[in-house]
Amino acid sequence: MTTVHVSLGKRSYDIPIASGLLKRLPEILGSQKVGSKIFLVSDTTVFELFGKNLQQELGAAGFQVKEILIPEGEQHKNLETVQNIYTYLIAQEADRNSTLIALGGGVTGDIGGFAAATFLRGISYIQIPTTLLAQVDSSVGGKTGVNHQLGKNLIGAFYQPTLVCIDTDTLATLPRRELQSGLYEILKYGLIYDADLWEYLENHLEDILDRVPGVMEHVIGRCCEIKAEVVSADETETHLRRILNFGHTFGHALEAATRYQGFTHGEAIAYGMLAATRLSSLRGDIDAESCRRIEAVIHRAGPLPPLDGIATDEILEAMKRDKKRHHDRVVFVLLKKIGKTTMRDDISEELLVQTWERVKSESAAQLS
Amino acid sequence: MTTVHVSLGKRSYDIPIASGLLKRLPEILGSQKVGSKIFLVSDTTVFELFGKNLQQELGAAGFQVKEILIPEGEQHKNLETVQNIYTYLIAQEADRNSTLIALGGGVTGDIGGFAAATFLRGISYIQIPTTLLAQVDSSVGGKTGVNHQLGKNLIGAFYQPTLVCIDTDTLATLPRRELQSGLYEILKYGLIYDADLWEYLENHLEDILDRVPGVMEHVIGRCCEIKAEVVSADETETHLRRILNFGHTFGHALEAATRYQGFTHGEAIAYGMLAATRLSSLRGDIDAESCRRIEAVIHRAGPLPPLDGIATDEILEAMKRDKKRHHDRVVFVLLKKIGKTTMRDDISEELLVQTWERVKSESAAQLS
Repeated sequence: MTTVHVSLGKRSYDIPIASGLLKRLPEILGSQKVGSKIFLVSDTTVFELFGKNLQQELGAAGFQVKEILIPEGEQHKNLETVQNIYTYLIAQEADRNSTLIALGGGVTGDIGGFAAATFLRGISYIQIPTTLLAQVDSSVGGKTGVNHQLGKNLIGAFYQPTLVCIDTDTLATLPRRELQSGLYEILKYGLIYDADLWEYLENHLEDILDRVPGVMEHVIGRCCEIKAEVVSADETETHLRRILNFGHTFGHALEAATRYQGFTHGEAIAYGMLAATRLSSLRGDIDAESCRRIEAVIHRAGPLPPLDGIATDEILEAMKRDKKRHHDRVVFVLLKKIGKTTMRDDISEELLVQTWERVKSESAAQLS
Repeated sequence: MTTVHVSLGKRSYDIPIASGLLKRLPEILGSQKVGSKIFLVSDTTVFELFGKNLQQELGAAGFQVKEILIPEGEQHKNLETVQNIYTYLIAQEADRNSTLIALGGGVTGDIGGFAAATFLRGISYIQIPTTLLAQVDSSVGGKTGVNHQLGKNLIGAFYQPTLVCIDTDTLATLPRRELQSGLYEILKYGLIYDADLWEYLENHLEDILDRVPGVMEHVIGRCCEIKAEVVSADETETHLRRILNFGHTFGHALEAATRYQGFTHGEAIAYGMLAATRLSSLRGDIDAESCRRIEAVIHRAGPLPPLDGIATDEILEAMKRDKKRHHDRVVFVLLKKIGKTTMRDDISEELLVQTWERVKSESAAQLS
């Protein structure tokens, strides 16, 4: 078992990571002074896969576990779903000593975390992420929240869990495309922060795609450690934390330009990382050989949907709208070398066009 | 000007208190590095009284201030009102550097604070309480939130303001009964924590009822200081903070038994304090002379609505329901002497009946 400690003063917590961890949850919760009343927030699919067993095992250990099933999908990540959770919690007489467990992917964690943050001004919250993306991305950082009809993630709170449990066995049933999504995020951690991790990923990419438990435990642990280091230094997003946005400027623009259809978030970020790397190379920030290595690994991680039919103009327009919305310059996170970033807010439109055209032609060549 | 500093590490903030403070707000905000975009949450009555002027003066100083008017009254303290605030904030392009000012009583502060806590995972929040109760009660503690249709204050968050401004001039237009409500809360601070404050209140009660600015500034400042001391030691309500619930066990029961009609919260707490004091005396915790002094001052603060027609049974039933809801023993905060409390969770039902009967007969005698 790998355990990552997230150091946040009074709000510090642990992330145990192992194959078969869910079976050991009664024992772990016993040592955590968790109250006997537990509410398990999950969607039907995940509840059937892992929730039912968990409920039985916790029940056998003396915990009283009620499930709260929420509808699946980003379109239900809204205040209405949270309201339904409140109503259930009240009807079942949840109190300040109750614990909410969010079992599922990022959406379930965001919703469950926000409900825990805002019910009775905050109740104890345990996260059990079951997708690779949620395991390496949402386990650390305390971001919770829901969408507003006028925009994504506009409503929310920073709220730390008391525990995050990662069982690598939950990855066995994950669709391949979702696994890939998480893998792109993992590659990001190597690129922005840790050349050793990057090298490990280069050498173990096929093991990750095969979901080899020991490799997954190592890689997820290291990603959580990196995010914890970045976030501990900078709890509410300001400066250092910005490096986590590597690949996100182009990635968000691609998502917006395609109206969040056709690309998973991970795939959009993968293209974003290809663009940010290429831009770093065009500016001479990173050497050509590293650029080539990075592109090779991203493409090895799996086929990306083609970029056909998306005009470069639309990408640039989406970037400008994003910039306008944040009343801010667009800050690009670029690479100086593998494991080391640099920030630039003075990139010319011409260079952006050139970058994106190159990414498009490279991508077409890969797919042909 | 009196300034109370609330010490909470990174989330520390000041409470300046003075007559005419609102006029000095542009200068104060200037020194606080407040962004230029400000959203002023208020109800129509309070906005007409103080908001319009404030908006003009801040506008003249270069701030861009948009008002967000919310409906008046506890019945609108719900997620729907918060949703409307979100929608307005988004439509007006509020961003992470925007500031939300809540101008009004406790309800406005609770709603505005919760909206600030949960918009974009928390934006800067300034509180300008305009009722005496909000000034001494809500200025410190970070409690924000709204009601759920199944219960009061079930949805919320702990969220600290960046500044609380108290202008004692706002009390000039406050209805007498609301002034009294705040005064009972002030008396509570003396009783539970500060014999010197209590003596000052005994000697200046009429000045407070006359809203003499210097006296108000002193008294409000001392109450904020006391609450800050209690809350700093114990940010999320657990132990020490319980002393703030002096008078609340009987008070809540009275409110519940009368379905929140007929008594303001302050009046219910006043009866609750009379009961807790009488109970302390019946148990021999406090001497008879202190008990008499306390009762005299509470009655001098103004007439309380009569207790006629409320059966003692109903009060006890309400207490039991409350106890059941919290899955907890009822902990009574009692007095050992003026300025010093003690906690008891072993009060017999017989003694509770005896206490309440005494409060009823004393109250009837006072009103006859």
